[in-house]
Amino acid sequence: MTPQALIFDVFGTCVDWRSSVAREVGAVLPRVDATAFATLWRAEYDPAMARIRDGGRGYVPLDDLHRENLHKVAGDLGVTAPDSLSHAWEKLDPWPDVVPGLLALKTRHIIAPCSNGSIALMTRLAKHAALPWDCILGADIAQDYKPKPGVYRASCAALRLPPEAVMMVAAHNDDLHAARAAGLQTAFVPRPTEHGERQTTDLVPDADWDVIAPDFLDLARQLAP
Amino acid sequence: MTPQALIFDVFGTCVDWRSSVAREVGAVLPRVDATAFATLWRAEYDPAMARIRDGGRGYVPLDDLHRENLHKVAGDLGVTAPDSLSHAWEKLDPWPDVVPGLLALKTRHIIAPCSNGSIALMTRLAKHAALPWDCILGADIAQDYKPKPGVYRASCAALRLPPEAVMMVAAHNDDLHAARAAGLQTAFVPRPTEHGERQTTDLVPDADWDVIAPDFLDLARQLAP
Repeated sequence: MTPQALIFDVFGTCVDWRSSVAREVGAVLPRVDATAFATLWRAEYDPAMARIRDGGRGYVPLDDLHRENLHKVAGDLGVTAPDSLSHAWEKLDPWPDVVPGLLALKTRHIIAPCSNGSIALMTRLAKHAALPWDCILGADIAQDYKPKPGVYRASCAALRLPPEAVMMVAAHNDDLHAARAAGLQTAFVPRPTEHGERQTTDLVPDADWDVIAPDFLDLARQLAP
Repeated sequence: MTPQALIFDVFGTCVDWRSSVAREVGAVLPRVDATAFATLWRAEYDPAMARIRDGGRGYVPLDDLHRENLHKVAGDLGVTAPDSLSHAWEKLDPWPDVVPGLLALKTRHIIAPCSNGSIALMTRLAKHAALPWDCILGADIAQDYKPKPGVYRASCAALRLPPEAVMMVAAHNDDLHAARAAGLQTAFVPRPTEHGERQTTDLVPDADWDVIAPDFLDLARQLAP
């Protein structure tokens, strides 16, 4: 069945967070290793969400977690960072195929992020990166974080579509396993340099995803009638 | 203060619901007066939301209220309408200035609907009418209906903006009174034929709104630096 909507992981799948955040860090904190800082900052992402997923903390938008984690990483490195550096996550550059691929997909499908980023963060990032979303779905809609099944299901429900009419697109196998368990179709698009040249994870699909494509333009070609 | 975001009423302000719904009704129910049917259908809109605003019924998306009201109006007229006719509200045509005006405003501001329509309805309507929204705000975000102040405030909060950094744009004075009471800036754009050639309401502003503009292109010019 051709999906009526495609929903996308964003950090890593649509945008190159590592080099973009490093650029923003470097502009504000010239004395730190900016790429190492970006990697350490991102490493705090999942533990911060885990407490919320587990119910140990109420839902807090990712913007606030990013700010808290910024100060933790800066403190660990013995530097002081301004709150405003948190907005680095709104200034991430897309992989080269993303904007033309999304424009091609948008002609036949609803396209929306299903990210752990908030509506505010995804809206500003879309303006920076020219991502032509039809609407913003994901964590804010569900008031919870992926890979909890409710996040995928709430995104489908917001479109009034059953999960089987929606395809999750991600560069991360674990995101797709969770989406499939929630009843969605799945598409894997690898991003082999998300974590740098020596990346070892998510280089290949680890299951029989419904579509496997080298980039978003090829994904659009595979879904065309 | 220049608003960082502009949020818009949609039915009447951005799109000509009356003639568009009449066109869809006429295609499916050739024996009824299609314009009269559209007007009667719309007349059920506010009473249906009122029960939800007052707490007499939990939040139900407008798509469902439209379907319920469709069958009520059809029944009153002694005809049977298919559920699918409810999707007429996803096929409304924009006033001629809306798309170019929104594109001009989008270069400097976040633009989003703050409508009583659901995310699903606003997303499909945006695809039909080529409305270039940055995200979809409004009733679904707040799980309540305008003019309750929480709907305007939840839309600002989703963008992580204080109400005074957001401007509500509407063709209806009552919508702007409610937005102003919630702390937002206000812009009035009259739509003197929303209810047909003999319209008597909302022809002129009834308060000193922050901006009064004949159309969205003029609104963009007035907000330009």
